Amino acid sequence: MTDRVVLAYSGGLDTSVAIPYLSEQTGAEVIAVAVDVGQGGEDLDAIRQRALDCGAAESEVVDARDEFAADYCLPAIRANALYMDRYPLVSALSRPLIVKHLVAAARKHGGTIVSHGCTGKGNDQVRFEVGLNALAPDLKIIAPARDFAWTRDKAIAFAEEKGLPIDVSAKSPYSIDQNLWGRAVETGFLEDIWNAPVEDLYSYTSDPAQERDPDEVVITFDGGVPVAIDGETVTPYQAILELNRCAGAQGVGRLDMVEDRLVGIKSREVYEAPGAIALITAHQELEAVTVERDLARFKKGVDQRWGELVYDGLWFSPLKDSLDAFIDDAQRHVSGEVRMILHGGRATVTGRRSEASLYDFQMATYDTGDTFDQSLAKGFVQLWGLPSRMAAARDARLGGDGQ
Amino acid sequence: MTDRVVLAYSGGLDTSVAIPYLSEQTGAEVIAVAVDVGQGGEDLDAIRQRALDCGAAESEVVDARDEFAADYCLPAIRANALYMDRYPLVSALSRPLIVKHLVAAARKHGGTIVSHGCTGKGNDQVRFEVGLNALAPDLKIIAPARDFAWTRDKAIAFAEEKGLPIDVSAKSPYSIDQNLWGRAVETGFLEDIWNAPVEDLYSYTSDPAQERDPDEVVITFDGGVPVAIDGETVTPYQAILELNRCAGAQGVGRLDMVEDRLVGIKSREVYEAPGAIALITAHQELEAVTVERDLARFKKGVDQRWGELVYDGLWFSPLKDSLDAFIDDAQRHVSGEVRMILHGGRATVTGRRSEASLYDFQMATYDTGDTFDQSLAKGFVQLWGLPSRMAAARDARLGGDGQ
Amino acid sequence: MTDRVVLAYSGGLDTSVAIPYLSEQTGAEVIAVAVDVGQGGEDLDAIRQRALDCGAAESEVVDARDEFAADYCLPAIRANALYMDRYPLVSALSRPLIVKHLVAAARKHGGTIVSHGCTGKGNDQVRFEVGLNALAPDLKIIAPARDFAWTRDKAIAFAEEKGLPIDVSAKSPYSIDQNLWGRAVETGFLEDIWNAPVEDLYSYTSDPAQERDPDEVVITFDGGVPVAIDGETVTPYQAILELNRCAGAQGVGRLDMVEDRLVGIKSREVYEAPGAIALITAHQELEAVTVERDLARFKKGVDQRWGELVYDGLWFSPLKDSLDAFIDDAQRHVSGEVRMILHGGRATVTGRRSEASLYDFQMATYDTGDTFDQSLAKGFVQLWGLPSRMAAARDARLGGDGQ
Amino acid sequence: MTDRVVLAYSGGLDTSVAIPYLSEQTGAEVIAVAVDVGQGGEDLDAIRQRALDCGAAESEVVDARDEFAADYCLPAIRANALYMDRYPLVSALSRPLIVKHLVAAARKHGGTIVSHGCTGKGNDQVRFEVGLNALAPDLKIIAPARDFAWTRDKAIAFAEEKGLPIDVSAKSPYSIDQNLWGRAVETGFLEDIWNAPVEDLYSYTSDPAQERDPDEVVITFDGGVPVAIDGETVTPYQAILELNRCAGAQGVGRLDMVEDRLVGIKSREVYEAPGAIALITAHQELEAVTVERDLARFKKGVDQRWGELVYDGLWFSPLKDSLDAFIDDAQRHVSGEVRMILHGGRATVTGRRSEASLYDFQMATYDTGDTFDQSLAKGFVQLWGLPSRMAAARDARLGGDGQ
Repeated sequence: MTDRVVLAYSGGLDTSVAIPYLSEQTGAEVIAVAVDVGQGGEDLDAIRQRALDCGAAESEVVDARDEFAADYCLPAIRANALYMDRYPLVSALSRPLIVKHLVAAARKHGGTIVSHGCTGKGNDQVRFEVGLNALAPDLKIIAPARDFAWTRDKAIAFAEEKGLPIDVSAKSPYSIDQNLWGRAVETGFLEDIWNAPVEDLYSYTSDPAQERDPDEVVITFDGGVPVAIDGETVTPYQAILELNRCAGAQGVGRLDMVEDRLVGIKSREVYEAPGAIALITAHQELEAVTVERDLARFKKGVDQRWGELVYDGLWFSPLKDSLDAFIDDAQRHVSGEVRMILHGGRATVTGRRSEASLYDFQMATYDTGDTFDQSLAKGFVQLWGLPSRMAAARDARLGGDGQ
Repeated sequence: MTDRVVLAYSGGLDTSVAIPYLSEQTGAEVIAVAVDVGQGGEDLDAIRQRALDCGAAESEVVDARDEFAADYCLPAIRANALYMDRYPLVSALSRPLIVKHLVAAARKHGGTIVSHGCTGKGNDQVRFEVGLNALAPDLKIIAPARDFAWTRDKAIAFAEEKGLPIDVSAKSPYSIDQNLWGRAVETGFLEDIWNAPVEDLYSYTSDPAQERDPDEVVITFDGGVPVAIDGETVTPYQAILELNRCAGAQGVGRLDMVEDRLVGIKSREVYEAPGAIALITAHQELEAVTVERDLARFKKGVDQRWGELVYDGLWFSPLKDSLDAFIDDAQRHVSGEVRMILHGGRATVTGRRSEASLYDFQMATYDTGDTFDQSLAKGFVQLWGLPSRMAAARDARLGGDGQ
Repeated sequence: MTDRVVLAYSGGLDTSVAIPYLSEQTGAEVIAVAVDVGQGGEDLDAIRQRALDCGAAESEVVDARDEFAADYCLPAIRANALYMDRYPLVSALSRPLIVKHLVAAARKHGGTIVSHGCTGKGNDQVRFEVGLNALAPDLKIIAPARDFAWTRDKAIAFAEEKGLPIDVSAKSPYSIDQNLWGRAVETGFLEDIWNAPVEDLYSYTSDPAQERDPDEVVITFDGGVPVAIDGETVTPYQAILELNRCAGAQGVGRLDMVEDRLVGIKSREVYEAPGAIALITAHQELEAVTVERDLARFKKGVDQRWGELVYDGLWFSPLKDSLDAFIDDAQRHVSGEVRMILHGGRATVTGRRSEASLYDFQMATYDTGDTFDQSLAKGFVQLWGLPSRMAAARDARLGGDGQ
Repeated sequence: MTDRVVLAYSGGLDTSVAIPYLSEQTGAEVIAVAVDVGQGGEDLDAIRQRALDCGAAESEVVDARDEFAADYCLPAIRANALYMDRYPLVSALSRPLIVKHLVAAARKHGGTIVSHGCTGKGNDQVRFEVGLNALAPDLKIIAPARDFAWTRDKAIAFAEEKGLPIDVSAKSPYSIDQNLWGRAVETGFLEDIWNAPVEDLYSYTSDPAQERDPDEVVITFDGGVPVAIDGETVTPYQAILELNRCAGAQGVGRLDMVEDRLVGIKSREVYEAPGAIALITAHQELEAVTVERDLARFKKGVDQRWGELVYDGLWFSPLKDSLDAFIDDAQRHVSGEVRMILHGGRATVTGRRSEASLYDFQMATYDTGDTFDQSLAKGFVQLWGLPSRMAAARDARLGGDGQ
């Protein structure tokens, strides 16, 4: 029986050319799998057909938008996942889901090889291959761009030689990855990190500097999950879609950063993720109201590690599982409403309320009705500072340079 | 000889009334000490005179603005100090400096008691008293508001009874603490955390929603310290002052949050800190360019702990000292320039350059000239994911529910 | 109706005297509650009767030995709970359990006040009161030793005055707290931290220096829980009891340390915990075999924090709950057998085996049959060290003092 | 000019054979460099001569024993460096020092290539190569065992073919790496992790089960550095040597563990490190006495990360430098004396004293003279537990399953 290669297919030049190329290199049939994670753009039926036109033996399109929102984006909200305090893990979240569907397709179609279009200097090769090794260690992996030093120029020459039905002229100056959770853009002139981004890089967000009226939105969370917007019940997918729309219209969620890649280099990235930034901002504030202090402080380290693991391609890892268990428990009471103003590139919380609030007006108020017993404070302050006081006295006694 | 009480004096109603009140309660002479940490407002000579008019035996004003900027605000920049990812520690930073000057005044004037105006439910009592205990464990501490259940109404009655030269009618609806680094506002209607702030809470920042032209600024850092703005050499004090001005004019640095107080309650706070937010944002980005990945990841935990310690009143503590040593070392190469756009409430980095950059164009580029050897990646990816792969295989073997 | 005080009753002088004393001070009836956490010693019926003889309105003995083992000691094994890397939290673990039964007794007997015998300078007052506040915030708390400055001398005088049926002469030179999990001893001469412990401090352990034959034991764990010893199924209570016996006979588990109390002082403590040390040692080694590397490294921080929280009296806290969720998940595969030699004060692992092992002979061996592909290593090493290499090159370029 | 290869030379079969083999493979001259890190064994002059006899163009022996003790072992003491809470980093510490001398030799002799004998599945290849890349990125690296799939059998055949002056018959069943800081042993039968170690694995330590008299030792530290033993001033090298002798004679420091290698597999290792374990144990206890609580708790995470970095080959890394700065500061007051009993495989602290002690007898004692003000405790306990209490009340109010 002929071997079959399952190819992560985008419909673009590189993976289209990869269909005949992989056949040629391996003698195998190619199964093209395109996963819809909300990237928009071209019609997916057209993409499915193009793979067949390029010689794929089978071509599948998987609508994974709800799954992506519920199983990948939601955990990121609950972990306040911002790599390097900035980046909401747009591409990093979609890779393990695509991996899952590639493995399913390999099982269904008898594939023994999986192929993806990533290069050898990015993070995505790691995310694909570590995920594949975890879910299906028996599958062989081929990454033509890395393993066969495949380049765009070679791809175009190959496409022309084979007469593939692909428009090789329409080259965007930008390298883009986008999905429901956001959009990542790289391009030559941004590789000089002193250069500023230009307006036409952006597609999910309007220019924040444009004059417009502010928008107000109330997001309801239940156990860390957004369940309603302005009182209307929403699925996770709908929540993200709606906030992409209304926060994007106000220019919220543009990011321009130098980031630490797993492969050891720093790279310049421009992102836009209006829904992600709005939802995480609201979620953080609701945590401030409903999560106890010690738990909140420790969770910051858990959140950081969660983001690093996912960025580093370790979605399918034992530590990720155990961090999820921690986060699940910590989210039990993250329920309530957050009101935000979206305007001028900012998503600003202006109000929060919750049945599970740990904010206690009677304890906090400086007005009549205060229930906080101030007489307790003196003893607290003394014992709280006792270790420092004893250390300072020791330093003074020894004539040291302490403090 | 008569005992002497050194009083942290603000010039306001509460601490003015405290002068005769402390005399009465303790039989001691009162030494009023006002420390200028850039709070602005009333003329400090007038404040100095008012203390004398209220009966102080001595009255001192200390200009500590440069010291505050250099020794308290700068370390906060280098630690990217944002408590709960938001609050740049405005009041928390000034307290240890005021403590230092209170102790100096006690030593100079033969004081044996120190007094401050803090209540028993806030953080500042802790910051004052833990600091005082560390620097001068021999000094006794009196906090009339807490220890004698002193209230504003009692203070007004006492002022009128004694005929003190204070205007008791001009009550602001807001409780405010401000200094060079920012401004904190509390007020009754904000104690309902669903209520939004109103425009007249703010003084350091213009309304970000107002239309205006963007401003661009280039900040030069040397070893984590801002040393020039738009090419002009500045002292730390000047750097903060200038960024308060230009970032404040664009509405940058407004914060509205529910925060975890050390004394165990949550409280609602509104802050504005335009210079602090702009400087920390620029500093973070320059760290992204110049600090190695593992160090950057670990430093996030160090920065978090630094902020918590300072918030919690432990400026003078052995752990703070050792964290400072870590941060000092980590800042050796945080030198270079960051260009920011200030506009509409946002401080957005648009460019960065540095002799000490770890961003390597030749390694990062996808264009011709790439020096990254992609053939190394395959081995890296395999061994990077090996532990996860073995764990996943184990889970599958045992029929567990892993992943 | 008469108020009722629920008293944590040990049967000793202090809490016996507290019965009439509390009645006198509060006008309330006293309900004595003794909780059996495996402390051994006196017959519990005798203790129950003594409380009645001292004037208690009700006297209860609760056999909580299995509950203590299963719900308090087991989580400590799974968290490898060793405060300051040494102390297995003997007293700290029993306090929340006693609190639980005090609250149950208060509910059953209509108590409105709870009383305990702790002083104001130890950790146990915190553990009792924070626990009580969490489980039953409505109950008032009285700690006579702390709140009424009650001392041993006063207690003896009071006992004699009242003719209480207590032997006031039999004063041990040692202050002891013991339970199934171990034993804590404090005494005057150990307060000089240069003094060595003497042999008659110890009761759970034989002198490790005595000559005797070694003992070998095989402990079977299932999901981090010891379920069999030498092939015999055991309950958690039996496991600890048996290891106390056989490890104690070999002098395992003696500890002599200076420890950081929550109230801010350092204190000298001598402990013996043979079963705890043997079980935790075996558990750690089984984790080394069955837990993936990244998870193991992160869990060390979780374990440390768990131990600190429990030591600090925060058993009933949100962070403790979420850490438990993490640990539960991480224990899923901690199943298998550990063989130990117990001898001369040492509990030494000599073998381990597990169906869930991540140790793979075929990968690890240097003999024939090796399945590890060494050719992958070169790429891994290069990219692993790339950030350090770039930083070192930068340092060299700038002529810095790096490395 | 002929290229020159600098070879890390041990005098054993593999690196002796590597001399002519590298010449043959590369056409370069071989410079053999043997670094004395206290490994003992054969005379170093004989080793130096053997390299020449095998065809080396130059042969050097570097006495780095004092340097190893002072610059590599001491930092490990100050960091209480125990990888996975057990392993004192014996081999991991020597590699960066050997790297340093290899680079020095390359500079001196005009070498352009460096070669080491490590395989592709161990940690040492990483330590060598990451170190070399950091210190001398221009040098090319060859690891024959990994890069040319060189095996012991091939080496013997090659030695016999070339008539090299090496005894190829004297094969030890053990693979050993040893130096001043300890000794690591691997061997075939230990690759079954259920097998126990046997007595003849050990060389630095006597059988702990043998009857003998205990030994007592007093170690004096200054700033975290051992400076005297039983009152006699010692260098770091002498301190380790002497404790290897006296602790080794008592069987202290044997370790048998399954450990997580950097390359992603678990391996079985047997170590003996009597001096390391005794010194670290003493140092930890002196830290318990002299280091303030918050600093001590945070330092545990720093120590763990330090050990992981060094284990993982990142001695020359920015994070290691900054952790060192933290540790240096934290060691300022770690001065004083620790008395230990060495006996039966145990190193047990029995006393400690220090001018810099934070243990305060007056605060800690339960006897007359107590200076701790117990009345402060009530307020402390209430506010300490306030966040937990409010969370528990919230959980109860919501009918949740909290606690």
